[in-house]
Amino acid sequence: MLLEELRAEVCEANLELQRKGIVILTWGNVSAIDRASGLVVIKPSGVAYDDLTPDKMVVVDLDNKVVEGTLNPSTDTATHTVLYKAFGSIGGVAHTHSMNAVAWAQARRPIPCFGTTHADHCFGAVPCTPPLSEDQVTSAYEAETGHQIVREMGNGDPLARPMMLVAGHGPFTWGKSAKDAVVNAVVLEEVARMASATLALDPRAPALEDYVLSYHYQRKHGPGAWYGQKA
Amino acid sequence: MLLEELRAEVCEANLELQRKGIVILTWGNVSAIDRASGLVVIKPSGVAYDDLTPDKMVVVDLDNKVVEGTLNPSTDTATHTVLYKAFGSIGGVAHTHSMNAVAWAQARRPIPCFGTTHADHCFGAVPCTPPLSEDQVTSAYEAETGHQIVREMGNGDPLARPMMLVAGHGPFTWGKSAKDAVVNAVVLEEVARMASATLALDPRAPALEDYVLSYHYQRKHGPGAWYGQKA
Amino acid sequence: MLLEELRAEVCEANLELQRKGIVILTWGNVSAIDRASGLVVIKPSGVAYDDLTPDKMVVVDLDNKVVEGTLNPSTDTATHTVLYKAFGSIGGVAHTHSMNAVAWAQARRPIPCFGTTHADHCFGAVPCTPPLSEDQVTSAYEAETGHQIVREMGNGDPLARPMMLVAGHGPFTWGKSAKDAVVNAVVLEEVARMASATLALDPRAPALEDYVLSYHYQRKHGPGAWYGQKA
Amino acid sequence: MLLEELRAEVCEANLELQRKGIVILTWGNVSAIDRASGLVVIKPSGVAYDDLTPDKMVVVDLDNKVVEGTLNPSTDTATHTVLYKAFGSIGGVAHTHSMNAVAWAQARRPIPCFGTTHADHCFGAVPCTPPLSEDQVTSAYEAETGHQIVREMGNGDPLARPMMLVAGHGPFTWGKSAKDAVVNAVVLEEVARMASATLALDPRAPALEDYVLSYHYQRKHGPGAWYGQKA
Repeated sequence: MLLEELRAEVCEANLELQRKGIVILTWGNVSAIDRASGLVVIKPSGVAYDDLTPDKMVVVDLDNKVVEGTLNPSTDTATHTVLYKAFGSIGGVAHTHSMNAVAWAQARRPIPCFGTTHADHCFGAVPCTPPLSEDQVTSAYEAETGHQIVREMGNGDPLARPMMLVAGHGPFTWGKSAKDAVVNAVVLEEVARMASATLALDPRAPALEDYVLSYHYQRKHGPGAWYGQKA
Repeated sequence: MLLEELRAEVCEANLELQRKGIVILTWGNVSAIDRASGLVVIKPSGVAYDDLTPDKMVVVDLDNKVVEGTLNPSTDTATHTVLYKAFGSIGGVAHTHSMNAVAWAQARRPIPCFGTTHADHCFGAVPCTPPLSEDQVTSAYEAETGHQIVREMGNGDPLARPMMLVAGHGPFTWGKSAKDAVVNAVVLEEVARMASATLALDPRAPALEDYVLSYHYQRKHGPGAWYGQKA
Repeated sequence: MLLEELRAEVCEANLELQRKGIVILTWGNVSAIDRASGLVVIKPSGVAYDDLTPDKMVVVDLDNKVVEGTLNPSTDTATHTVLYKAFGSIGGVAHTHSMNAVAWAQARRPIPCFGTTHADHCFGAVPCTPPLSEDQVTSAYEAETGHQIVREMGNGDPLARPMMLVAGHGPFTWGKSAKDAVVNAVVLEEVARMASATLALDPRAPALEDYVLSYHYQRKHGPGAWYGQKA
Repeated sequence: MLLEELRAEVCEANLELQRKGIVILTWGNVSAIDRASGLVVIKPSGVAYDDLTPDKMVVVDLDNKVVEGTLNPSTDTATHTVLYKAFGSIGGVAHTHSMNAVAWAQARRPIPCFGTTHADHCFGAVPCTPPLSEDQVTSAYEAETGHQIVREMGNGDPLARPMMLVAGHGPFTWGKSAKDAVVNAVVLEEVARMASATLALDPRAPALEDYVLSYHYQRKHGPGAWYGQKA
C-alpha cells in the first residue's frame, strides 16, 4: 500500500478534528502531500469519522486522479490540490465547517487581529475571499475555490497566515503537516469565537498594535523564536 | 411484537437525540412509519431517554389510536401523523426543543440560507409557520400544528427542505427514515446557531448566491450527486 | 441518624446540579423539608460536590438551628427556610449561579415567556425581585432574600411558577421535592439561554399567546394533564 | 530534586486548567513560589498538558534564571516573577487565554461587578491594564507586562482582587497557592461570560450595590467570614 505512514497521519488528523469538537457529522476533511512523489492522501467522501481507518484514505495525484483506493475522495479534493500546487511550503490542508469561523465567512468579513492569542498563530487578520462568480461555480467550483484562496493570499507567506475564510462557505487552514493544519483549524475556530465576543463588547474594538503582533509572532515563529523546546 | 426492526430503529434514533446533545430532560421525540401497514412507531410520552428500550415504543395508526403498547404515546403524536399523511415520501419525523432552533422559532423568523453548510442540507431558507389561532389551539392543537407545517410547505418537496420551525414553539424535521430525521435535527440546530452568530457580526448579512445554493445542494442530493460513496 | 432517606435524596439532588452542568466549584445548594417534623436537610457550606455524601448533609429546623450534623449548613440556609415557611406546598429548594439565569438576574429583568418550552414548566414570565435595600442586607441578608422572593410571588401559586430571579444575584427554584427543584433549575437555565438568544434575533420578540401558554401548561400540569404516564 | 511537593502542586494546577476547560492546546501556565528560598516552580514552555509530569516542571529564581530543569520555562516566566516580587502575599500565579476573559481584554474594558457571583471572589471590578508602549514591548515585554499589572493594582490588596486583564492579551490571576490561582482563573472566565451575557440583555446594566458587594465579599473572605467549614 502506498504511503502507509502518511495514510496513518492523515487518518489521525481527520479523527483529531472530531476529538477537538470542530466538526460534526462528516463536515470536514484533512489531507497531506508527499512532495517527493507529488501524491496527496485525503479523507474519503462522506465517511463517518468513527469508521475511518488508514487504509480507507484515498491517494490522488495533483490532477485529482485516484491513484490508490476504492472509495471516492472528498468532494473538496480539487481545492486541496490547487493549494498544494500554489503553496510549495505546505504539507497539509484542513477544511471544516466549525461554527465561529463559518459565521465570519458567512458575514464575509476578515477576522481582525484583536489580541496576542491570534498573533501567536497568524501574522495579521485572517483574510476572507470575495464570493465566487456564477461562472466560477458552474465551471469548476472546487478548483476555483482553491484559486480564490491563492489570489487572496497574493504574495503573502502561506505559513505566516495559515488560514483563510471563503465567503459564504467556511475556513481552510494549512501547515507543514496534516497535524499542523488541524492545529490551525482549532486555533482559527477559537480566535473567531474570541473575535465575535470582543465585537459584542465593543463594535469598534481596536486591532492589536503592530509592534505587539510582531513581537508575539516572532517569539513563536521567527528566526530567533524561543517559545517551546529545542527539537 | 409488531414491527420489531422499526421499534429498534426508533428507539435508537431517540437515544441519538440525547447523544448529540440536542435534547435535555424529555424534550424531544422521534417516530418512523411503516408505509406497508400504515403504522407509526413513536416514543412514549415523558419517559427519560436513559429508560428507553425498543419494547417501550408505542405503535399507533394514522388516526393516532394505539395499536400496540401499554404506555401513552408522545403528546405530539397527532403532529407526526399529519406529516406522514401529507408527505408521502418521508419515513421518519423528529421534534426537539434544541436551543438555537427554538430561538429562531421564538423570534418567529425563517432562517436564511447564509452559506454552504445550510445549502448542503436544505434547499433554501428554513421556513417558520405563522402562529396558530386560538381556535386551532383549543380545537385540536397537535394536529393543527401539523397542518400549519403542511400549509407552510405548500407545493415544496418535503425532502428538499426537511425542516421547519413552528412559531413560538420549535423545530420539526423529517427524512427518509427516523435516522435521517435526527440527522436533520442536528443539522438544523447547528445551522441555526451559525445563522445567529452570522447576524451578530452583520445584521444585514447577505443570503448565499442562488447558484452556489443550487450547486451545493445538487452535489449532495441531486440526480447526479457525487458526494459520499455509492450505496 | 435523622431522615436517612431525605439525606440521600438531598445529596443526590446536589450531585445532579453538577452532572447537569449548572454549577461549577461550590456555586449551588439544594435542600428538602420533612413537613411532618418541620426539619430541613441541606448541603453543607463550601464542600466540593465530589466530596458530598448523605451523612455530610446538615439537618436544621425552620429557625435555622442545626439539629444534626458537624458541618456548617449552606450560608443560604435562611433563604431556604423562609421559602419553606411561606410556600406550604413545596418540598425542595435549589439555588445556583447558572450562567444564563444569572445574566437575567444581573440585568434585573424578568424572563418573558417566549415559547412552549418555557410554558411547559412555568406559567408565565419568570419574575425578578427588586434589589434589596441596604437595611435589608445589613440586618438579615439571607432571610431578607427569602422575603423578597415571597413578596414578589404575592398571591401566585409557587408550584405554577417554581422559579424566580433575585436581582443582582441569581436564581432560586423549588418543587414538590429536591429532585423537582433541580429539574426546575435545569429548565430555568435553558429557558434563560433560549430567551437571550431570542432577543438577540429580535429585541422586540413577542411573548407567547396566552392561549398557547395555557394549553401547554395545562397539558402537562393541569387537572386533566395527559403528558407522561399514569403514576 | 528541589521542591518536590511544590513541583507536584504546580503540575497538578496546570493539569487542572485543562480539566476545567479554560485552556486549549498549550495556552496557559501556572507557577508557585517557595517564599523561603525565593524559588519559583513553573510549567515548561510549549509542552502539551497530557505530557506534563512533576519532574518536567522548571525551577527558576526571581531573576528568571533556571536553577533546575532541562526544559525551557514558560515564555511568560518574567511576568510571573515580577508579580511575586511585587505582591508579597501571593503564592501562585496563573495565566490563560480563556475565551471570555480574553474578549474583555481585547475590548480593553474592566469587568464591572454585576452580581454576587463576582462579589464572592473579587472585591470590585476586574481591572484592565492600558496597552504597553512600543518601548515596553521591544525592551522587556514579559517583565513589562508584569509591571503594567503591578501599576494597575496600585495600593490595592492583590488577594482582594486576585485577577486582572492585560489589554489586547488576556487574564492573569493569582492566589495564596497555585491551586487558588487556578480557581480564580476559573472564576474569572465564568464571571466574564456572565458579564458579557448581562450586557447583551442590557448595555446599561447597573453595577452591584456597594453594600451587597461588601456583604458578599466579607461573608466569604472577611475577618468574620462564615462561608465554608473551619479549617
